[in-house]
Amino acid sequence: MMQSMKKIVLPALCAAALIAVPAAAGEDKAEFPSPPEIVAKAKAEEWVAIAPSDLLVMDLTDGPRGPRRVVIQLMPAPFSQGWVGNIRKLAAAKWWDGTSINRVQDNYVVQWGDATEKKALPDGLAVVPESNYIFNIGESRSLSLDKRWDKKFEWNLDRIGDEQPPKGRIPAYIDGFKSYANYDLFERGWPLAVDTVDFEQWPVHCYGMVGVGRNLSPDTGTGAELYTVIGHAPRHLDRNIALVGRVIEGIEHLSSLPRGTGALGFYEKEEERVPIVSVRLGNDVADLPAFEYLSTESASFAAYAEARANRRDPFFNIPAAGADICNIPVPVRRKAQ
Amino acid sequence: MMQSMKKIVLPALCAAALIAVPAAAGEDKAEFPSPPEIVAKAKAEEWVAIAPSDLLVMDLTDGPRGPRRVVIQLMPAPFSQGWVGNIRKLAAAKWWDGTSINRVQDNYVVQWGDATEKKALPDGLAVVPESNYIFNIGESRSLSLDKRWDKKFEWNLDRIGDEQPPKGRIPAYIDGFKSYANYDLFERGWPLAVDTVDFEQWPVHCYGMVGVGRNLSPDTGTGAELYTVIGHAPRHLDRNIALVGRVIEGIEHLSSLPRGTGALGFYEKEEERVPIVSVRLGNDVADLPAFEYLSTESASFAAYAEARANRRDPFFNIPAAGADICNIPVPVRRKAQ
Repeated sequence: MMQSMKKIVLPALCAAALIAVPAAAGEDKAEFPSPPEIVAKAKAEEWVAIAPSDLLVMDLTDGPRGPRRVVIQLMPAPFSQGWVGNIRKLAAAKWWDGTSINRVQDNYVVQWGDATEKKALPDGLAVVPESNYIFNIGESRSLSLDKRWDKKFEWNLDRIGDEQPPKGRIPAYIDGFKSYANYDLFERGWPLAVDTVDFEQWPVHCYGMVGVGRNLSPDTGTGAELYTVIGHAPRHLDRNIALVGRVIEGIEHLSSLPRGTGALGFYEKEEERVPIVSVRLGNDVADLPAFEYLSTESASFAAYAEARANRRDPFFNIPAAGADICNIPVPVRRKAQ
Repeated sequence: MMQSMKKIVLPALCAAALIAVPAAAGEDKAEFPSPPEIVAKAKAEEWVAIAPSDLLVMDLTDGPRGPRRVVIQLMPAPFSQGWVGNIRKLAAAKWWDGTSINRVQDNYVVQWGDATEKKALPDGLAVVPESNYIFNIGESRSLSLDKRWDKKFEWNLDRIGDEQPPKGRIPAYIDGFKSYANYDLFERGWPLAVDTVDFEQWPVHCYGMVGVGRNLSPDTGTGAELYTVIGHAPRHLDRNIALVGRVIEGIEHLSSLPRGTGALGFYEKEEERVPIVSVRLGNDVADLPAFEYLSTESASFAAYAEARANRRDPFFNIPAAGADICNIPVPVRRKAQ
């Protein structure tokens, strides 16, 4: 395969010591809204509606505090669509009804599906190849991403020597770290990694992302066995497992479950498992509110990400001058009626 | 202040695409033990005993599954010793007995202390200055750390072009990312960030780390109000709050608590709070097992960290070629009797 030149660059975050001067005194801090304040002021047109057909709604049995509904947004093309297609079929077949949450491993994942591993799958599920863990973006797209990175990088270089962070909105967030790939970025609402040497892009295992359990290679899983991340981003799973979505509401019904005491956090006793009443696509759920996410291409998202990387609201003395991609969760909310 | 030269380096992780070739077939994979296998084979002398007087033992009321004990290892000198000293005094005064867990915010923190904010503190607590969030390591130490980094960096550069990861033990893990500081590293058992430009070092907000709640600057907190991280590392808190330890056993009793529904995840009703029966230093607890951690200066830790960054055990197709510091938890265990 043709490879573009590997680039030698100053990591944006090497500028930390120079940018991370103490923020100005109280009066000036008011000029810097907090990340939630930036999101609250985003314009209506900066929010992107999520189609109900791109939602997966999982209802567990009621817990001690009432109903437990988990809402998952499925990944859009071009990522993981073979598995996403299987998940649509499994939901349409009501396959998950009567299955359960079977594994809760602290600082790692919650996993659900058929604990017996004997339930027949619906016909017509795709067998997706391992190559689909990664999306090939091609050389010209890689070059354009490199240019975009250079622009940010130059902007960071320009700031070296500044005694104060510039005031007002900054046009792009500071990428938190370059690792695993050339760099991480947000596109179309999702956290992604990019390798512009091999022209590759793939979704990132941040908190709340949903992936497809599988057996040893060459198995890639069907989508019937799913998990979500409930701890520090396990990025070693990137490119090794399909990511198919993220929990956008109700993750606390999973993350606060008792940890399993078996190997890998599996529940040892059948009665510990949490029953799944139903899993449906959003368009098959009558009482589902509308959801929307803040466009990651919007000015407000750039300001929000920059503010996450450089907290200057009153609590903070020293802005970090960077945030890793998983510490910049994409804002998702119920759409106002 | 004198500043050493800012260095321009190739981030180690830019090598990702080159190192991250698919691992060899099954036979060869057996040569690469998994991280837990490496830890299990570490020599007895690579483990460091934790003095009981450096442990803080918090007993909650029994939960639905029995006793709930949380064991915290306090940070050693030179970090945060003003707050650690206060915590020793608070434990000796049995100050936390009858207080409670008051806040559980998903993907962020669990916080405990006196919900009434009216309980009188013991006499003689130190007021610790903000400058103590950071430890000044001096210029010569900074230079020696720079040399250490260069050595690792050269080692990574040497690997560029390799078609296979070298077999056998690799002498140092690949630092996961350079950010927030020149780089992150482990020393004396703890995850630390280093800024060799300003000669600074500070502890890192990884999952399970314990910090000191405070009010707005210049308040720095006493140590009476504590929290632990139960989500993706909130590194924006680094250098803004004192870190005083980490949970080494029983974090599931905190991370699986119901999330608070008030602002910032505070419990809204008094009956939701989880009562703390007692908090004692380890040497005042009769039935406490002995604990030990794997020396972060040991060969086995280097191999473990490298294996965390480059998973080659059978499940993995593509090693990540890097791990961020919070995805390399320092192994801690009960000492065999």
